[in-house]
Amino acid sequence: VAWNSLSSRFVEMNPRLFTFTGGDSGLWTVTYFQPVVGEPLPEIKRIDITSGISVASSKGPKWTLRGIVSNERYVTRIEKDQLVAKQAAPGRSGSTHAGLIPIRKNAAWWALTQDERRAIFEERSHHVQAGLKYLPNVARRLHHCRDLGDNEPFDFITFFDFCSSDASAFEDLVAELRATEEWKFVDREIDIRLVRQD
Amino acid sequence: VAWNSLSSRFVEMNPRLFTFTGGDSGLWTVTYFQPVVGEPLPEIKRIDITSGISVASSKGPKWTLRGIVSNERYVTRIEKDQLVAKQAAPGRSGSTHAGLIPIRKNAAWWALTQDERRAIFEERSHHVQAGLKYLPNVARRLHHCRDLGDNEPFDFITFFDFCSSDASAFEDLVAELRATEEWKFVDREIDIRLVRQD
Repeated sequence: VAWNSLSSRFVEMNPRLFTFTGGDSGLWTVTYFQPVVGEPLPEIKRIDITSGISVASSKGPKWTLRGIVSNERYVTRIEKDQLVAKQAAPGRSGSTHAGLIPIRKNAAWWALTQDERRAIFEERSHHVQAGLKYLPNVARRLHHCRDLGDNEPFDFITFFDFCSSDASAFEDLVAELRATEEWKFVDREIDIRLVRQD
Repeated sequence: VAWNSLSSRFVEMNPRLFTFTGGDSGLWTVTYFQPVVGEPLPEIKRIDITSGISVASSKGPKWTLRGIVSNERYVTRIEKDQLVAKQAAPGRSGSTHAGLIPIRKNAAWWALTQDERRAIFEERSHHVQAGLKYLPNVARRLHHCRDLGDNEPFDFITFFDFCSSDASAFEDLVAELRATEEWKFVDREIDIRLVRQD
């Protein structure tokens, strides 16, 4: 449990909330750290990813990002069934390599209606179909940040993990998504690669 | 600005975030307070609604709810244009009466895919079309709570305001929505009516 200062009550941790702490400590060692577009983020050596509400680590992190797993916004039942049949959850023992990609989308994206965003996301950018090709080798967890309540620096943080032999396939997936019409709406993006130090 | 304990940084207030404080003080006097389904909420005399991050009032509120205005999840461009042509923002000087309706939807709702939720929301429950009939007299602001990061007690808080002569029309709107297929997924709901004390 954690103290919620707004409502003066103890609240249970929300297991859908994840905290990403960048600094000198953490399970994941940074092997690549590059701003793609927009304001950069301070470069760090290691990242810790924890579930639930997290207090700042005693080792003095350079930054903390948060995101929450939520219901899917775009997939149809047909696509969902395809995903469920192929997908794996992150955290497999062989998944020693990871990608962490925080992005923000611009105001034009958020002003679009649901049908307009869906058409860009899937009919024209094939976001789900791109991800499907790399399942189950590349596991994925999407975290939403935009509606956490603070002015979060990113709208989404996506975590992917995979074994070392799939590292180049993962780069193909990233390149494929980054070339889409959907990505024209991305106005801040940091590209991070990680290796797990057990 | 407010202190963000998670990331040890000062953050600007998010103008999309609203705090609803129930207790003995506040602009709005409660004229009706009734749990509709699920766990009730302590009954209170007055409610204050503030924008941005809010600290607990010194008058000892009985409860604090929060919600954030976000992008629309279901409306199409055609519906959005209809809404924009007719709608008014809450806060008009003549809008002395209000409805405040916190709801939570069950796990079955959140497990549905986007196309399934949309079909229930509009094609079968006509949520947008119901609201359109009462515009601009009944103004509406929807706040999302589910992804704020804590375990919030509700998924949505909707605030409506109108002048006294539209109070019975507002009850018709509430009854119409509550009879829909969409509302079968609501497992917690509190029905609150308010009058403004300037």
